[in-house]
Amino acid sequence: MQPQTQVKRGLKRAVYNREQINQILDDTYLCHIGGVVDGYPAVQPNLHWRIGDTLYIHGSSKNGLINAILTEGKTCITVSALDGIVFAKSAFHHSVNYRSVMLFGTPKLVEDEQEKREALDALLEKFKKGRSKETRPPNATEMKATSVIAISLEHVSAKVRATGPEDDPADLDLPFTSGVLPIHQVYGEFEPFDPNA
Amino acid sequence: MQPQTQVKRGLKRAVYNREQINQILDDTYLCHIGGVVDGYPAVQPNLHWRIGDTLYIHGSSKNGLINAILTEGKTCITVSALDGIVFAKSAFHHSVNYRSVMLFGTPKLVEDEQEKREALDALLEKFKKGRSKETRPPNATEMKATSVIAISLEHVSAKVRATGPEDDPADLDLPFTSGVLPIHQVYGEFEPFDPNA
Repeated sequence: MQPQTQVKRGLKRAVYNREQINQILDDTYLCHIGGVVDGYPAVQPNLHWRIGDTLYIHGSSKNGLINAILTEGKTCITVSALDGIVFAKSAFHHSVNYRSVMLFGTPKLVEDEQEKREALDALLEKFKKGRSKETRPPNATEMKATSVIAISLEHVSAKVRATGPEDDPADLDLPFTSGVLPIHQVYGEFEPFDPNA
Repeated sequence: MQPQTQVKRGLKRAVYNREQINQILDDTYLCHIGGVVDGYPAVQPNLHWRIGDTLYIHGSSKNGLINAILTEGKTCITVSALDGIVFAKSAFHHSVNYRSVMLFGTPKLVEDEQEKREALDALLEKFKKGRSKETRPPNATEMKATSVIAISLEHVSAKVRATGPEDDPADLDLPFTSGVLPIHQVYGEFEPFDPNA
């Protein structure tokens, strides 16, 4: 295990179980990519998806951060979902419920045309099962404009909080409400696009 | 404007309007903090909140990344919300709707006790209006265990996508569905905590 992969704070929330980590990655769309651009830390949102033990991201082949992490040979990709706000009797023990995955690794540009197409198809399949067959596939220009980056899920860990408030025993009888306000991500109704509207 | 603050790609999505940026920051809870720890980029989820022109984050006074960005004197804090999945007729033009804010700046440890308390109160108020008065305030030990970090909202920009698919004209008659699947974050019903259960 790389030293960074070891959760250092909040040890009771640490998760190293790959099945649970995969589930978090598959249930979420947004990741945040960290790197250093011109000597300054940079964090960009992106979409992530997974095939087996590999996490993929993609972007414009001119994306500065993606090119910086490829040159540097290292990145940290973090995926977080907020599941609730935890109200405690004490200000200090207010918290949030969340699932978060942190991946350290060497980003690799996918150069094999076949692997690149399969990876991009897998993103469409994550959006909607069957979608990779229900759309015009990328042409050569579009393929060239897109970088697909693979990162091994070797150095990965997660933290999960999914419980009620954890007040000090001395505070339990204070006359304040405590509990969890759950937060869910839900889909609305599909809005078909009419190009002639 | 710092060079990083200038949006480089997807210029038509760039937002520099501070009112719109403030709204995104106030409507969201999760941010991602970027820094460098032991020579490796690191991205950690955290909560953010705003008072006027200052963004705040907080964490354990032993948090490695927070201490690293304080030592380094620079960070990038990114806030992103996913608003929908955009299905296009072409694979290439599939996209997502989102709001994303990127802040570069010098993180400052809030050392003034009064400012620190007011900042922590403002986080509780963001969770629920009035909450800072309906909880036991932090004691000296808890205050010491918590670092509050302030970052000026000077070098901030945003990107927003909030529209339908943008297919090439040649693809518009392809026999595939296109449109937007909206994604919303919603609150569930409050779950009161019973310490004796």
